[in-house]
Amino acid sequence: MKEIDESEAERHRRKMANRKAVQDAEVASKTIEKGLLIVNTGPGKGKSTAAFGLALRMLGHGRKVAVVQFIKGAWDTGERVALEAFGDRVIWHTMGEGFTWDTQDLKRDVAAAERAWEKALEMMALPDVGLLILDELNIALRYDYLNLDTVIADLATRRPDLHVIVTGRNAKAPLIEAADMVTEMTLVKHHFKAGVKAQAGIEF
Amino acid sequence: MKEIDESEAERHRRKMANRKAVQDAEVASKTIEKGLLIVNTGPGKGKSTAAFGLALRMLGHGRKVAVVQFIKGAWDTGERVALEAFGDRVIWHTMGEGFTWDTQDLKRDVAAAERAWEKALEMMALPDVGLLILDELNIALRYDYLNLDTVIADLATRRPDLHVIVTGRNAKAPLIEAADMVTEMTLVKHHFKAGVKAQAGIEF
Repeated sequence: MKEIDESEAERHRRKMANRKAVQDAEVASKTIEKGLLIVNTGPGKGKSTAAFGLALRMLGHGRKVAVVQFIKGAWDTGERVALEAFGDRVIWHTMGEGFTWDTQDLKRDVAAAERAWEKALEMMALPDVGLLILDELNIALRYDYLNLDTVIADLATRRPDLHVIVTGRNAKAPLIEAADMVTEMTLVKHHFKAGVKAQAGIEF
Repeated sequence: MKEIDESEAERHRRKMANRKAVQDAEVASKTIEKGLLIVNTGPGKGKSTAAFGLALRMLGHGRKVAVVQFIKGAWDTGERVALEAFGDRVIWHTMGEGFTWDTQDLKRDVAAAERAWEKALEMMALPDVGLLILDELNIALRYDYLNLDTVIADLATRRPDLHVIVTGRNAKAPLIEAADMVTEMTLVKHHFKAGVKAQAGIEF
């Protein structure tokens, strides 16, 4: 058991009381409710994983979640199977054709991205979806499979309470500009470097 | 429909064929399987959310997940309710006493952190848990509620196939040193700055 003397306890109390006052004032100053455009980008792990964590949160509030995958992940089995527990409250569309280095076919990739964007627009039109995940859309934008201006314009026309989360590395600057919240996942350390392979429940 | 000429398509094919060769060689070079110590830290969003996304992935593979929360979040309702869909495959222990600025009581915070660590050890001893989430453990370590050396030594004694994920900002350097994978979530842009309040399904 850690020993704590009274002066240390009192310093802690005062510091935390100040912190609480700042925190409370900050919370009180926020009054706007709106559907957010969220971007998770960067070379680190957790971009899609955090999006699916947010899906879980939204489902916990009784809302529906739609997912459009722009690049068909070989490694998405875990979360897709788990989300089946929520029945028709999760709508999942895998529209991509595999990693771009698997297809090696630009026309096919562009056509797949265009079909995926049509599907995204269809999901945006559903009135009862609370969160739309556009998984790896940044990849499709990076390779110019889709027109960036069109994508941003379409996103701007969505209903005001729909939250959208876009994942994938190398998010384009105008998308970051248009977004309400942007997080960059930075790789500090990765076990692949130490020869550890992709494992069930972690990478897929 | 985007126009693509043949030379562009061929350049793309060659580039992606090279990329695939590199990718395949890299995957083949990884052979080790082990329970990972993962740390999600940094000031950005998505540290806990990505941990719960990983929980979803693990559940999709039929494994059990245990969660020990070191700081009782006022804002964790969404994911906790959603994870109830998985019944006894999710074991959830909220051990903290609220944000440190809410309790303002150092002794109480230290006692709560110590109880939480005991619970974490108990979860580590369960043979059928695939992933243990130690949510906001970094906060307890940052304020020295727990002894860092003890925590790292205890983590090192876990069974070799147990994945552990530690969340919270300001991860201590020796914990990063001990970890297999570390991601720093960096805040690029946050809607709170624009006066948007915390909303159901997003922040809680």
